Amino acid sequence: MEFKGADILNAKQFNRGDIEAVLKMAAKMVPFSSKKKWGDLMKGKLMASLFYEPSTRTRLSFETAMHRLGGSVMSVVGAQFSSLSKGETLFDTGKVIESYADVAVIRHSDDGAAENLARGAGIPVINAGDGINEHPTQSLLDLFTIQKEIGKIDGLTVAMVGDLKYGRTVHSLSSMLSHFDVELIFVSPAELKMPEPICRMLKEKNLAYKETEDMGEAMKWADVLYMTRIQQERFTNQKDYEKHRNKYVLSRELVEAKNTKQLIMHPLPRIWEIKPDVDDLTGAAYFRQVSNGVAVRMALLALLFGKTP
Amino acid sequence: MEFKGADILNAKQFNRGDIEAVLKMAAKMVPFSSKKKWGDLMKGKLMASLFYEPSTRTRLSFETAMHRLGGSVMSVVGAQFSSLSKGETLFDTGKVIESYADVAVIRHSDDGAAENLARGAGIPVINAGDGINEHPTQSLLDLFTIQKEIGKIDGLTVAMVGDLKYGRTVHSLSSMLSHFDVELIFVSPAELKMPEPICRMLKEKNLAYKETEDMGEAMKWADVLYMTRIQQERFTNQKDYEKHRNKYVLSRELVEAKNTKQLIMHPLPRIWEIKPDVDDLTGAAYFRQVSNGVAVRMALLALLFGKTP
Amino acid sequence: MEFKGADILNAKQFNRGDIEAVLKMAAKMVPFSSKKKWGDLMKGKLMASLFYEPSTRTRLSFETAMHRLGGSVMSVVGAQFSSLSKGETLFDTGKVIESYADVAVIRHSDDGAAENLARGAGIPVINAGDGINEHPTQSLLDLFTIQKEIGKIDGLTVAMVGDLKYGRTVHSLSSMLSHFDVELIFVSPAELKMPEPICRMLKEKNLAYKETEDMGEAMKWADVLYMTRIQQERFTNQKDYEKHRNKYVLSRELVEAKNTKQLIMHPLPRIWEIKPDVDDLTGAAYFRQVSNGVAVRMALLALLFGKTP
Repeated sequence: MEFKGADILNAKQFNRGDIEAVLKMAAKMVPFSSKKKWGDLMKGKLMASLFYEPSTRTRLSFETAMHRLGGSVMSVVGAQFSSLSKGETLFDTGKVIESYADVAVIRHSDDGAAENLARGAGIPVINAGDGINEHPTQSLLDLFTIQKEIGKIDGLTVAMVGDLKYGRTVHSLSSMLSHFDVELIFVSPAELKMPEPICRMLKEKNLAYKETEDMGEAMKWADVLYMTRIQQERFTNQKDYEKHRNKYVLSRELVEAKNTKQLIMHPLPRIWEIKPDVDDLTGAAYFRQVSNGVAVRMALLALLFGKTP
Repeated sequence: MEFKGADILNAKQFNRGDIEAVLKMAAKMVPFSSKKKWGDLMKGKLMASLFYEPSTRTRLSFETAMHRLGGSVMSVVGAQFSSLSKGETLFDTGKVIESYADVAVIRHSDDGAAENLARGAGIPVINAGDGINEHPTQSLLDLFTIQKEIGKIDGLTVAMVGDLKYGRTVHSLSSMLSHFDVELIFVSPAELKMPEPICRMLKEKNLAYKETEDMGEAMKWADVLYMTRIQQERFTNQKDYEKHRNKYVLSRELVEAKNTKQLIMHPLPRIWEIKPDVDDLTGAAYFRQVSNGVAVRMALLALLFGKTP
Repeated sequence: MEFKGADILNAKQFNRGDIEAVLKMAAKMVPFSSKKKWGDLMKGKLMASLFYEPSTRTRLSFETAMHRLGGSVMSVVGAQFSSLSKGETLFDTGKVIESYADVAVIRHSDDGAAENLARGAGIPVINAGDGINEHPTQSLLDLFTIQKEIGKIDGLTVAMVGDLKYGRTVHSLSSMLSHFDVELIFVSPAELKMPEPICRMLKEKNLAYKETEDMGEAMKWADVLYMTRIQQERFTNQKDYEKHRNKYVLSRELVEAKNTKQLIMHPLPRIWEIKPDVDDLTGAAYFRQVSNGVAVRMALLALLFGKTP
């Protein structure tokens, strides 16, 4: 992909080379994301962060990336949007935003919203999550975390645990991981299995994957344990929910019983699915993911403007 | 008007010389508003944008102007205000804001709100729309657009179409245009005619204007077609609404049938009153108005602080 | 207290030396807070202002302080937070925020919220008000105002008027003033007297205080009259409310009748408890408090980062 001037809309647009380019650039951004240096790569650039759906963690990650590279930021959040749209199309909003900003980050509850905005806007648009569709920068930061923590992605076994059916994060991650030589283990209740289209895509690429309901089994083999939350509203039966919810809880006791050293990841917020006593384990990388997210977003900004630190 | 340190509260405070001063300064701001240059004219200045009533398009326009001239911005939007006012007067809010900011931009649902804030605040206050009262910077950007696109304002025929009764925009625009040698055509349903006080003001100034319900007639003569939206809530009878709404819709087919080349403007958001197929016509200036709005707001900021790029 | 890297969580953590250090630094900040100079002390630093509970006056005060010292700001306000927390602990939020910002300012409706955030965040956290618990920076700006206006704090008689039972402000102020050689007069209806624990603390420190319902009496002796508002919801009986409310209203007539020159302070917003005709009296310091608040917050930022202008 030619990054300069591009839109970042979905995981599918990234081939292996693209992913590696982002990870390489992200590594260069670590001095800035880790607060050792304050940059000026984005000086004279203005970002509009358009969060139709509030998502504070993601918004602040992008805004931090912009600020720490010397750029400027304007934000619009949630209900304030009623006044922007008043029924206008996202195409028109894109035409308006291109007169203001140099780059737009959009979060929206509708699938395809980022693409519609990008169609109108003659400036780079970054999808920060649209509906249950895509959240490509989350997957890039997940890959960057694996790379940074273990030193490689090829050859690893990655287990994804929890709600694999509705989890936007694990869909995009599977798609991105399919460019690497990995084995996947999908751990979920039967009701929340990884959707068929993603499994089919993996088969077409000859990528090995296993499905199981047993997290303990997965912990034996996985180099990376990617935890997600199971949400109550996915179940019609309250008892089913509680049964499953209790099955996929990571505690220090469990990790030590399995004597595993694997990387433990989570897109956050973490509620009950990882106990606080896990936090101090060396493999617990979920809070480091946050900082890696800043580095990856800095990297994307640099690439979209054709800049290098 | 002495711009330095002034408040920008309404269209009436501008005489012809004032308007020309703004347009001249706006022309100098185009390199900055069009993103060719990043300025530093507002470096060391802090703007408070106080949008009691959310109006994202206008807010971002002011904030873009400030950022791109090197200034800093703090915003307060909508419901956050309940905590600012808690029943205090706008005069008091003005006293508070002057301790924080160097310039305040206010949007409010009450007529006269900007004036009340300005009374308390010893810093320049810019009215970004108060109730159905005034929105002077919108009219200035409209004039700047006409000047920039056609090269002059004197001698033109300007048609305003749609809801002329409640449209704050067309009231301010008529007031500003009355300083020039123009002819006006007011196109609206009988229920939504230009209010009497504005017509009287035009007569007093010996400015020719025509009133009609026929948009096609106006298109024959107008150099500028200023479209606005007719809002459903203005009609008690749903059928009347639909009849009128359908009468004032601009399509490519219609423009080409009339073989006109006139400038097509709209304050946005545009919903159904201009069809998307009009967008590519050379006369379609409504998205260029957005960028001109940034230039005009930059110009006002510069003038209020006595600066020149 | 070692300020560098510290959290500012409550009034109790300040001893007399700490308070004096803040006031001394605040005095150095006046050129910046009063807009004579634009600073760069916070250049390369990013503040996250996390206002779970909107409090626009306080938020803008902190943000003004940061901007005018050359720092950068990201804000999250009110309802936007539902997306940040989604049930996660403030400890976890702290872990996330430390990856983004260099300093966090938090306002929250729960007592102890700032402390919980600080426990997770490895960056300085400043409490901008948590529940009915603490609002330490308000008290520091009150002390700075007294010092700046009268030239000293020792030896003064300070009267606090209004709702002393629920007023977070007067609790923190009493606590801070207890380090000085002052006399206190507490003026309130019997239903809204200063809470017992604070009175006990003053006795232990051998600090003289008087309690009265008579504001006029207090005006005879006080060097400083600290007004607060009596809120209707504190009373079950509407008549009681109106009776008390009308007793504690400061007018120019009243001040002149008493022939007093004392300093009149108020944490704002001021509604009916100080009449507008008081504003022009030389002793009316409540709007100057706003500017002093910026200086004090600048001072704290400087101290937390170990910087001097």
